[in-house]
Amino acid sequence: MPEILFCTVPPLSHLRDAEIQAAIDQKTKPLGSLGSLETLALQIARIQQTSTPVLSKPHICVFAADHGLAQEGVSAYPSDVTAQMVINFFHGGAGINVFAAQHGIALTIVDAGVNAEFRAHPHFINAKTQRGSRNMLRESAMSHEDCAAAVRRGREIVRGIHAEGCNVIGFGEMGIGNTSAAALLMHSITQIPLEDCIGKGTGLSDAQMQHKVHILQQVVKRHTITTSEQSSPMSILQTFGGFEIAMMCGAMLEAAHLHMILLIDGFIASSALLVAHAACPQILEYCIFSHESDEQGHKKMLAYLGATPLLRLGLRLGEGTGCALAYPLVVSAVAFLNSMATFSSAGVSTKTV
Amino acid sequence: MPEILFCTVPPLSHLRDAEIQAAIDQKTKPLGSLGSLETLALQIARIQQTSTPVLSKPHICVFAADHGLAQEGVSAYPSDVTAQMVINFFHGGAGINVFAAQHGIALTIVDAGVNAEFRAHPHFINAKTQRGSRNMLRESAMSHEDCAAAVRRGREIVRGIHAEGCNVIGFGEMGIGNTSAAALLMHSITQIPLEDCIGKGTGLSDAQMQHKVHILQQVVKRHTITTSEQSSPMSILQTFGGFEIAMMCGAMLEAAHLHMILLIDGFIASSALLVAHAACPQILEYCIFSHESDEQGHKKMLAYLGATPLLRLGLRLGEGTGCALAYPLVVSAVAFLNSMATFSSAGVSTKTV
Repeated sequence: MPEILFCTVPPLSHLRDAEIQAAIDQKTKPLGSLGSLETLALQIARIQQTSTPVLSKPHICVFAADHGLAQEGVSAYPSDVTAQMVINFFHGGAGINVFAAQHGIALTIVDAGVNAEFRAHPHFINAKTQRGSRNMLRESAMSHEDCAAAVRRGREIVRGIHAEGCNVIGFGEMGIGNTSAAALLMHSITQIPLEDCIGKGTGLSDAQMQHKVHILQQVVKRHTITTSEQSSPMSILQTFGGFEIAMMCGAMLEAAHLHMILLIDGFIASSALLVAHAACPQILEYCIFSHESDEQGHKKMLAYLGATPLLRLGLRLGEGTGCALAYPLVVSAVAFLNSMATFSSAGVSTKTV
Repeated sequence: MPEILFCTVPPLSHLRDAEIQAAIDQKTKPLGSLGSLETLALQIARIQQTSTPVLSKPHICVFAADHGLAQEGVSAYPSDVTAQMVINFFHGGAGINVFAAQHGIALTIVDAGVNAEFRAHPHFINAKTQRGSRNMLRESAMSHEDCAAAVRRGREIVRGIHAEGCNVIGFGEMGIGNTSAAALLMHSITQIPLEDCIGKGTGLSDAQMQHKVHILQQVVKRHTITTSEQSSPMSILQTFGGFEIAMMCGAMLEAAHLHMILLIDGFIASSALLVAHAACPQILEYCIFSHESDEQGHKKMLAYLGATPLLRLGLRLGEGTGCALAYPLVVSAVAFLNSMATFSSAGVSTKTV
């Protein structure tokens, strides 16, 4: 598979950093007193190469898919829930609907590989080639062609959203079984011990958790060759990724390629980013990490990426809910930079020393 | 001074907790997967004694005052900045203006004791009896009568805001020198070593910080009698508090008395709450802790109160900015409880086990 699918993210210029930082420092507040919001303002201004950045048509794209491995009992919920939740998204009843509506964030639901057919809906895209990934205990999760198609479709979808004027995009997911796929991707890419990558997902009991660990250990054994350090990000994705993760990976790369601001959600979304990052490390400059998930592997995943999350609320819902909940802080970062008075404009004295 | 000024906060009934928790648990999400937002939803629903709570006319009240101790060089900024920032608030140029506007939060600026006179402004209340507190190196910060008047005025102001239909209120402050007052209140009430209560405020150098510690040590020595464990919250407040802190303390108590939701900001606002809490521990049930400040004493202050902050963004701006920045999470907590579908209404399967 051609790695060129992945390598299209331009590094950001830091030439205007000093100018942007000066604009931040002239605002009527003690130096640095807006903490992470100042870091965020600098990052956004750098992405847009201006000290007066603008957030335009915020959008969250939720990718849904089923997982062959779910039949091994790795989730607390039945696979049917994936399709049921897609319909819940259509009707506006899910967490992401509520939080996206609260913040004026547009929502697109993508069928990346759900084991069901859906009626047309104005915010729905049918992008699947398969009705779910394959059982990784027996074979790779996706065929070469299907995985590449998913990455490409993710990129196309983001191109469409960008063409409508969006410059800030979040990525969410729904897929019963996908914490298993994410844990396997994480282990394979970061070489962090498998047990440290596996969490309780939607809420496994201790016994169910033991079973999940056992199954994932078997999967890793089955695919020893592809987990060697020589493996390419694409082959790892094909082996362990779900369709929603593959499509999200393509979507993230395209968004960074287009100089959009990327809002990264929790454990699953971050696993897609891990793959994208393995191919294109410079993608991180475009990423805002919305939160640290309660799913145990996420903290280590963020540490691996050197990422500081905005929120730590013990969330583990997925769907892009962390992106939506953190979004007002992104707006605040841009707002203070654009709208606060400066010491000179407000006639406020600066430090005495 | 009659402690009755303070003791008017009714304990909350927990009788409906099970019903509210059931409403939270029936939403289409894994149990507990909204983390702190679920805790918040339960708290708000408990305050309002309904599983369909409503946030009405959110309001932030910013109390400003000057501090006699500022003449000892305990701040990085000159005292003039207090009045200059009040005018900045009037013109909409401060951080709190930007964030309150972003979230539709009404703003009232209160002159609790600024060393300047201001013209009338639609969102301004002149509530001062003195143009700043006294120099604590020489005498108590406030007289008995002035302190009591400040507490009473704080309560009156909140009664007025409540009468206009507000049920969720944040408290902010502006006052050059007020991290010193807050540190002294904290030390006096919690018995935490003084050095652990003192921080760099608006940004002191190491040498300036040493000077601040030295000055505050002298203040504590000067007022040894009042820092004994026998001291009443009111006498501690009178000795060390600034006028904005005293007024905020009264405002917080009145808000809880009226069953409003209280948004607590950073180090200074929390020091006002410490006083209120010392008199009326049940006030905590009404408090949402918006963030953990970068001012070093705040973390220990929150631990003393057993409080978990929503945000940890390294903020140290004051003005109620933390309240405003955390407010969308409060809205989200209420929104998911009111607007998400339930498993049965959405036809989503529940856990398999």
